[in-house]
Amino acid sequence: MPKKIHNIDGIEFGTASSNTRYGPRDDSLVVKLPAESKLSGKFTSNKLRAAPVSLAINNLSLTSKKNKILLINAGNANAATGPNGLKDAQSYCSAIAKNVGVNKENVIPFSTGVIGQSLPVKNYLEAFESALNKIDSRNWKQAASAILTTDTKPKIVSKEVKVGNTSYYVTGFAKGSGMIRPDFATLLSFVFIDANLSQSSLNKIHSTALSESFETITVDGDTSPNDSSLLATNGNSTKNIKKGSAAEKKVSKIIIEIFKELSELLIEDAEGITKKVIIHVTQAKDLEQAKSVAFTIAESPLVKTAMFGSDANWGRILSAIGRDKTVINIDKVKIQLNKEPLVKNGFIDPKYSERLASKAMKKKEINIEVSLGAGKAAFRAMTSDLSEDYVLINSDYRS
Amino acid sequence: MPKKIHNIDGIEFGTASSNTRYGPRDDSLVVKLPAESKLSGKFTSNKLRAAPVSLAINNLSLTSKKNKILLINAGNANAATGPNGLKDAQSYCSAIAKNVGVNKENVIPFSTGVIGQSLPVKNYLEAFESALNKIDSRNWKQAASAILTTDTKPKIVSKEVKVGNTSYYVTGFAKGSGMIRPDFATLLSFVFIDANLSQSSLNKIHSTALSESFETITVDGDTSPNDSSLLATNGNSTKNIKKGSAAEKKVSKIIIEIFKELSELLIEDAEGITKKVIIHVTQAKDLEQAKSVAFTIAESPLVKTAMFGSDANWGRILSAIGRDKTVINIDKVKIQLNKEPLVKNGFIDPKYSERLASKAMKKKEINIEVSLGAGKAAFRAMTSDLSEDYVLINSDYRS
Repeated sequence: MPKKIHNIDGIEFGTASSNTRYGPRDDSLVVKLPAESKLSGKFTSNKLRAAPVSLAINNLSLTSKKNKILLINAGNANAATGPNGLKDAQSYCSAIAKNVGVNKENVIPFSTGVIGQSLPVKNYLEAFESALNKIDSRNWKQAASAILTTDTKPKIVSKEVKVGNTSYYVTGFAKGSGMIRPDFATLLSFVFIDANLSQSSLNKIHSTALSESFETITVDGDTSPNDSSLLATNGNSTKNIKKGSAAEKKVSKIIIEIFKELSELLIEDAEGITKKVIIHVTQAKDLEQAKSVAFTIAESPLVKTAMFGSDANWGRILSAIGRDKTVINIDKVKIQLNKEPLVKNGFIDPKYSERLASKAMKKKEINIEVSLGAGKAAFRAMTSDLSEDYVLINSDYRS
Repeated sequence: MPKKIHNIDGIEFGTASSNTRYGPRDDSLVVKLPAESKLSGKFTSNKLRAAPVSLAINNLSLTSKKNKILLINAGNANAATGPNGLKDAQSYCSAIAKNVGVNKENVIPFSTGVIGQSLPVKNYLEAFESALNKIDSRNWKQAASAILTTDTKPKIVSKEVKVGNTSYYVTGFAKGSGMIRPDFATLLSFVFIDANLSQSSLNKIHSTALSESFETITVDGDTSPNDSSLLATNGNSTKNIKKGSAAEKKVSKIIIEIFKELSELLIEDAEGITKKVIIHVTQAKDLEQAKSVAFTIAESPLVKTAMFGSDANWGRILSAIGRDKTVINIDKVKIQLNKEPLVKNGFIDPKYSERLASKAMKKKEINIEVSLGAGKAAFRAMTSDLSEDYVLINSDYRS
């Protein structure tokens, strides 16, 4: 949790419980944004698109200059629910729109939870209505907590950046701990900026921030139908940021940092994690190869179980590189793990020490450096190990 | 274990222990084949190719018309061992060649076990020499047992087929339980035919048999540097099989059956398995799509943990289909599990019954039928579930 959470003028949060899957725990979040706010949404590439994702994409292109409302529920993904799922999402969005007095397109829904069960509309609508009565700009912790599923803790990042005499604030929160891989990671993420930015700047910053954060992490290589990332300004007219200005650069930078830190928090809370594993591939032929090798290693069950077992089993890392489709030969491959030499020229490094490598494996953070000797491209991916707990959590999710 | 194991005239097996990783357990196998025998070898596509694989490929193209010797060791893969690994393999092969009185190219090595450690040549050579003194055509069980690593039991399949008055026999054995996926599966497999077939027929039958067996199974999507499959005839001149004859057809058929049954035995003994899962994809646009969808489902950690948890979590199956790169839309997707309807038109089948689906999930064999509604291609893949035991076995392999 950050030491200081900066509120974003005019953006308010309220939470309540639907009293369904999670009992009395708050699982429903309403976010109210001012009329001047601008929203940029990016969504899952999974062809199984959840109903709220379809509706959010539609509505985001049609919002009017009035308040915008985000409705987020945890516990039910409203995915693979067919035409009824879409009707359900439309119905509670319309009801809230009426309640607040805005066009129904100004209400944007997000969902996370079990796939394939109909959403209990009445319960969630009651929760949203009750949440709406409690909105306050300081409710960050409640908001970040209400959207969790198998996550064990809320994830919030907040930063300030000064440009001249003006302070800009960016605060965001995210959830996601399994069914995570890029294109992009399974998650809900909401980041808010106290400033006024053009829609095109906002979209561009959003894409860049995603590619450097959520699109570099994987837990299990599975993607969800509900992945949604929202970046929004409050439209603060005293903090206008012009295209190409120094302020835009500085603010972009902290937005990207916030996204990166949120994605790191997701990995640190990945299902069953005992170790954070960072794979840095360098000297790749091109970015595609660097990414492909990084994710092949990051998603190899044998590498991930070796990490869990604190076994410096470099043979499994090398073998994963060897099966990657973009790799032609492994004669120049070099691997280091927490600075310990493992592999040189495609086989064991003469400087390899089993004792030192085992010691390095005991750490909670494992940095694997892979140099392919094929070119100049590089990519960094982040993942978790594969533990018994991951299996237990996921063999027991629905029941 | 088959009721009857048919010996293959002139092919003999001897086993012994190297007294290394597995203590006194036999871990070294010598197979002696007659001068007239023909061999067809197929090997891993992993670019990290183990030393014995490189040597086997080389030698198989240079064998002379004398006895052929296979040397198989378990416990050490001799992979990622650099130039010294190759020298090691050459040294024990040459020693055995001298001992038997054949060209060194007539000796073909195979290895399985830990990657990246130098092979204790002296120990294995002593074991091979001792094994050579005990060869006998009846030693199938000893042979199939000596090559095991994390497998829990030997896998042997044996069949007879009659063509006119002539009986043809085919007997084979294989190992492999983790680091398994096609291109091809991580395994060693040896199948022997009591007949004389041309080299080109043998190669062709071998390729067909592989594509219908080991190339349809996956445990964890990881491949090994040591995968090797050998199909050999004893060259029995009283059982000449002509190209295009009815005998060739019938014998091909039982060879393919043997490969299929061996691959099924591998899956049934996959690391940590509690359930065998068969994924049959139909109505795909083309074979590539059918395969891609089948393996995306088969390798999804979330599908595999749901299987372990006996959870009919069709949302995860559908979500895996949705993230497959070859899939454009899921509106026509239909899924059944052990004949229970799960999904129709891309969402829950109106006939779905949680009670019946849960009952179906309790079975030890799960048949998932996926119809994509996109064309006419089909593919069947086989896998295991992902259990706590898989994690335990693989986090503790080297130590």
